[in-house]
Amino acid sequence: MSEGGLQPVLVAGQWRAARHAVGAFQPLNPATGEPLPERYPTSGREDMLAALEAGHAAAAALAQTPPEPVAAFLERFADLIEARRDELVQRAHVETGLPAEPRLGTTELPRTTNQLRQAAAAVRDRAWRAPVIDTRANIRAMHAPLGGPVVVMGPNNFPFAFNSVAGGDFAAAIAAHNPVIAKANPGHAGTTRLLAELAFQAVREAGLPEGTVQLLYQLPPALGLELVAHPLVGATAFTGSKAAGLQLKAAADAAGKPIYLEMSSVNPVFILPGALDERLDAIAGEFYTSCTMGAGQFCTNPGLVILPGGELGERFVQAAAERFAAGAPGVLLGAKGLAGLNAAVQALVAHGAQVVTGGQPLPGPGFRYANTILRATGAQFLADPAALQMEAYGPVSLLVLAESGDAMRAIAEQVEGSLTGTIYSHTGGQDDVAYDRLAPILRPRVGRLLNDKMPTGVAVSAAMNHGGPYPATGHPGFTGVGIPAAIRRFTALYSYDNVRPHRLPVELQDRNPTGHLWRLVDGAWTQGDVPAG
Amino acid sequence: MSEGGLQPVLVAGQWRAARHAVGAFQPLNPATGEPLPERYPTSGREDMLAALEAGHAAAAALAQTPPEPVAAFLERFADLIEARRDELVQRAHVETGLPAEPRLGTTELPRTTNQLRQAAAAVRDRAWRAPVIDTRANIRAMHAPLGGPVVVMGPNNFPFAFNSVAGGDFAAAIAAHNPVIAKANPGHAGTTRLLAELAFQAVREAGLPEGTVQLLYQLPPALGLELVAHPLVGATAFTGSKAAGLQLKAAADAAGKPIYLEMSSVNPVFILPGALDERLDAIAGEFYTSCTMGAGQFCTNPGLVILPGGELGERFVQAAAERFAAGAPGVLLGAKGLAGLNAAVQALVAHGAQVVTGGQPLPGPGFRYANTILRATGAQFLADPAALQMEAYGPVSLLVLAESGDAMRAIAEQVEGSLTGTIYSHTGGQDDVAYDRLAPILRPRVGRLLNDKMPTGVAVSAAMNHGGPYPATGHPGFTGVGIPAAIRRFTALYSYDNVRPHRLPVELQDRNPTGHLWRLVDGAWTQGDVPAG
Repeated sequence: MSEGGLQPVLVAGQWRAARHAVGAFQPLNPATGEPLPERYPTSGREDMLAALEAGHAAAAALAQTPPEPVAAFLERFADLIEARRDELVQRAHVETGLPAEPRLGTTELPRTTNQLRQAAAAVRDRAWRAPVIDTRANIRAMHAPLGGPVVVMGPNNFPFAFNSVAGGDFAAAIAAHNPVIAKANPGHAGTTRLLAELAFQAVREAGLPEGTVQLLYQLPPALGLELVAHPLVGATAFTGSKAAGLQLKAAADAAGKPIYLEMSSVNPVFILPGALDERLDAIAGEFYTSCTMGAGQFCTNPGLVILPGGELGERFVQAAAERFAAGAPGVLLGAKGLAGLNAAVQALVAHGAQVVTGGQPLPGPGFRYANTILRATGAQFLADPAALQMEAYGPVSLLVLAESGDAMRAIAEQVEGSLTGTIYSHTGGQDDVAYDRLAPILRPRVGRLLNDKMPTGVAVSAAMNHGGPYPATGHPGFTGVGIPAAIRRFTALYSYDNVRPHRLPVELQDRNPTGHLWRLVDGAWTQGDVPAG
Repeated sequence: MSEGGLQPVLVAGQWRAARHAVGAFQPLNPATGEPLPERYPTSGREDMLAALEAGHAAAAALAQTPPEPVAAFLERFADLIEARRDELVQRAHVETGLPAEPRLGTTELPRTTNQLRQAAAAVRDRAWRAPVIDTRANIRAMHAPLGGPVVVMGPNNFPFAFNSVAGGDFAAAIAAHNPVIAKANPGHAGTTRLLAELAFQAVREAGLPEGTVQLLYQLPPALGLELVAHPLVGATAFTGSKAAGLQLKAAADAAGKPIYLEMSSVNPVFILPGALDERLDAIAGEFYTSCTMGAGQFCTNPGLVILPGGELGERFVQAAAERFAAGAPGVLLGAKGLAGLNAAVQALVAHGAQVVTGGQPLPGPGFRYANTILRATGAQFLADPAALQMEAYGPVSLLVLAESGDAMRAIAEQVEGSLTGTIYSHTGGQDDVAYDRLAPILRPRVGRLLNDKMPTGVAVSAAMNHGGPYPATGHPGFTGVGIPAAIRRFTALYSYDNVRPHRLPVELQDRNPTGHLWRLVDGAWTQGDVPAG
């Protein structure tokens, strides 16, 4: 506990009191609505500038650091997280209301340490650098760190796996030898502080620059905009609301600073008639599980389901509604989320959607919302597609009963950029004609196209795209999950033209530095040395 | 010749008069200052929307088109350009004042057809898709076209190699199966029209959608901003002035549309003492050639040279000035460029730079500026680094005489993002200590680092980076030259999760579609099939 009863920030290798803090906040336990004991500072410009300067110095040093200490840091950090598992899970549970088990302890924490270890492996194998060697022109190129710290602003819904310290963006930024300035999500400030303590211990043990990991808890909005646009910053990764994301994007864009955003996504699910005919109950069950998991607070939550109207469609609505009504509603992450969710549902209703089940907040203590299904006709959706695909961040989905296959495709044409899009079809091929007409419409509107599977699982795979067209993200070519692709966001392309051999980075010298680094040499991928001229 | 004496636009597969044109323009011959005979329309919203709709339809069709017709188009286009070589060279010469030989006919036109043929090869080999297959998770990903047309706005200085039709951005956008809406550079509207005629002939012969290539000559500024931000657009590639680029960037960014910019760059050249001692005259000669080539109107022109003060530095200034004064000044691209160049030189002088030779416009006819060397001390530069690294787009360079190695490094720390950075050093190693201290400062500030070589040559190499940190471009991770990297700008990342095998794009199916496509399968690059599970 630091002066004034406020938790300390981590700046320039020091856990110290915020300097000239401009405010303070005290999180609530969302399951009870009661305040938690700790109070955290809202930092002012002095902390921000100190973090930027230390981060900038660390960036220069990390760019010259060989892979081994960076990889060792990531692995040691993962070990330390596991050693403090119970404390972390308990803290995150109290701060977020997410179930300690299996969600936090068995699912999310191991996913997080797995990501850190995958990142460590990527640091060692260096594939993210994607070296390209043109021996004829004597030009060589590879990806390299950005030259400035990466600001990570994590979301409220994954206190471990997308945490500003320890989450996917953190791991990816570090893997490319960039320092991180973490801006905690205020909803789990204590979890983040604990993670930062472990990270900083690992930084010291690995001998990395002390500015490699820094932590602030909160900044006034104007200062957040200044931070992402600051000349010393390398890039920013933000996951959160569209409103906040767009403001940060405008500020970073105006300064020419890369910013990677994950904002909102309704993740449309199309169910073709044959699939309903074949396995209506099974799909209803998968839908219920996917939509209510984590109290629906997933970026890949299926918020919009398009299915054929008529008898089968009505039966699906009924089957889903029964499950939603019977299921125990989870605890939401906070009061703000509850208010926003209720407003979103009210807005959908105001635009003609009809409540099938749920549709209102639940009595306290704590923050909960009824599992909710809304319905609308295809004609209603097509009359006001923007309003009827507004994200409702919680256990809520809108079922659109399309009047025909043509209506279904017309709806697909109105779908905004989303992280995922799913098509369920008959396993025997009865829907193949409809699929072949629908998929080309849906494909360019989503980052990940799924068949016969709800979108909430996001595997940490090299082939994952946790990204998608605007407004799901800010650029359709990048993914926030998956190694090494996610690392590439935090890199610059460095070309070396006629640079003398001994001055080249080892990854671009003739000799393969690891004996197994994949390099594109004169058009062919190889793990070998560059053949002697 | 179309109605009203205005040249026709190419929209939706038709050469037709601009509809409700909002203005017209008539280019000048920059060598004489006399107007050229043709007049061109400034298009209004009607042409723009028609082009967007046709481009959008073409995008959907091209996404489903196999590689062969796209590759055939690019090759046929290259053939047609060569068949009309003399006419193209003469037209470009008259419009730009660039020498017909060797510049246009022997250097730039073959470079352009070479780029088109490299793009055709890339279409066939499909390496730009960078397929990734994770057999364990059953997720597969690759890059794909954007789903909307790419707007290409080419610069004035390369009527062929960076032309909105036929240049590097055009070739890269088409290679990823995107249609192009070309906005001609008004300075060579006739060359562009001729190229578009050939391109459209090739489109028809290859059987591509008629909206694959479209041409407008000019838009009012507000409409240009609307175009790059339009929902139907896939992305924009712009090469030109920083002022125009930043306006377009703001508009595209606000709409979440990718935009790739190449704006301004001073391309600093550092000459270390040993290099001067060893080969002062040779470097002065290379510098003269590089800085005055194409009348200095290259994006990689060496506009800022940092060298040691003292006797050697003075001798270099003298040797360079003699060459600059003796060389025949080339014709500039236009009146606007001449005025801008003169204003830039005056601004440098106003901030303390001293004219060594040149420094004024030359008498007509036509648009020419004296080959110009300016000088300043390191202290002067460090007192006002922003003003003294303003780009002067022409045969102009500022020599900064640094008082010490420390001063040289301090100057490097003030260099803004640039396409290139060069260090000349002694071949025997006398400068190695200084190099090792300077290079890490310069490296993150430039896209391409050169040794012992002026930056104006931009090889079309897979290892090229014709890009760099802001404000040279809008993102440090992309290159505008080099295949396949340049193609990746115009792609979205598509992931396929649990998609049934026969529904996958052929590039992601188990069988390697060409027998030699490089794919990352379970972590290893291979040209083989996916092994049977």
